[in-house]
Amino acid sequence: MQSCIDICNRCAQTCLQTAMNQCLEMGGRHVEPEHFRLMICCAEMCQLSANFMLSNSPFHTRTCEVCAEICEACAKDCASIGDMDECVSICRKCAESCKQMASMATH
Amino acid sequence: MQSCIDICNRCAQTCLQTAMNQCLEMGGRHVEPEHFRLMICCAEMCQLSANFMLSNSPFHTRTCEVCAEICEACAKDCASIGDMDECVSICRKCAESCKQMASMATH
Amino acid sequence: MQSCIDICNRCAQTCLQTAMNQCLEMGGRHVEPEHFRLMICCAEMCQLSANFMLSNSPFHTRTCEVCAEICEACAKDCASIGDMDECVSICRKCAESCKQMASMATH
Amino acid sequence: MQSCIDICNRCAQTCLQTAMNQCLEMGGRHVEPEHFRLMICCAEMCQLSANFMLSNSPFHTRTCEVCAEICEACAKDCASIGDMDECVSICRKCAESCKQMASMATH
Repeated sequence: MQSCIDICNRCAQTCLQTAMNQCLEMGGRHVEPEHFRLMICCAEMCQLSANFMLSNSPFHTRTCEVCAEICEACAKDCASIGDMDECVSICRKCAESCKQMASMATH
Repeated sequence: MQSCIDICNRCAQTCLQTAMNQCLEMGGRHVEPEHFRLMICCAEMCQLSANFMLSNSPFHTRTCEVCAEICEACAKDCASIGDMDECVSICRKCAESCKQMASMATH
Repeated sequence: MQSCIDICNRCAQTCLQTAMNQCLEMGGRHVEPEHFRLMICCAEMCQLSANFMLSNSPFHTRTCEVCAEICEACAKDCASIGDMDECVSICRKCAESCKQMASMATH
Repeated sequence: MQSCIDICNRCAQTCLQTAMNQCLEMGGRHVEPEHFRLMICCAEMCQLSANFMLSNSPFHTRTCEVCAEICEACAKDCASIGDMDECVSICRKCAESCKQMASMATH
């Protein structure tokens, strides 16, 4: 579980940092509403997902499941816009790791 | 949607305030790990759920779905422990409202 | 204290909702990096400020103090950009209310 | 700045994980209201502090300043209760790192 926590944390940091710096400074498609919202919501979901695992909540399987969906959507969106390789890569890893956590039986 | 945002916010506030004051001060079953974790995680999930709706994220239907499950579990747990009528009542309302949001088609 | 909690919550909601919808959709000066960062950081600080008061933390005077500074800066920035009357008004109220909380003796 | 972000993140994780597992399971002084509130508020402040730095907000010096105070108080409290060496150590490091960030000129 610790490795999924670490990946969620790195993904939250990368999405927030990229959105609030690179995206805002490049403008254009990078601040297109649907893309920018997805980056910010992905960061927030990854942070909550990590917090649920840290807190040992049995609902972490459910939050990891939703987190995996959002990370997958964010990876696709970032890949189609381009110039966001780091974001694409960490979002894919996070989606994979969260999907595995979600598939484990809880309690 | 605004009414669901308002209910999620009130539920987040009530759970956090009750856990950090009443539960910690009463002790006993109120600080039993599974109960206390549920209160804190419920507060965090309701806050994220409200933020996703405020941000107009299409994933709000997914986060509302999980929020409804956690609120329902929290309402049941608080009811079985007793002395937590306000929490029980707002968690039930929030579960109901989030379930409705989750069942609507998005975008 | 409850009225300051309510104002902080409304301010957090207004800043997040305005940034993620109106600002992203209008573009131009509304997504200028310094302005947009301030809106998002103001929303996050108001939420933390409310949570510290709800948790009855003695550090709420310190977080309210910083929250007042950020809300004041956000009100000024929104006023200079224009078309953001609701944000200007709630940020000013929140700055005022947080300044009062910060000036009270704690414990 | 990246090293302060990393330390804030580790401190947020350690405080939340320790509070929601070790403290709740050990009970007694570990769930005494003032101690437990401090742990949870410290975790939340460290997370916000990291987010302000990631977002490149000029207010990160102010949030780091308050974060340093809370981490110092949390380190002292954990040390006096005992059995919390990891928390004491990371809170001290985080207080030190945030104090340095706060003392730097911004912009």
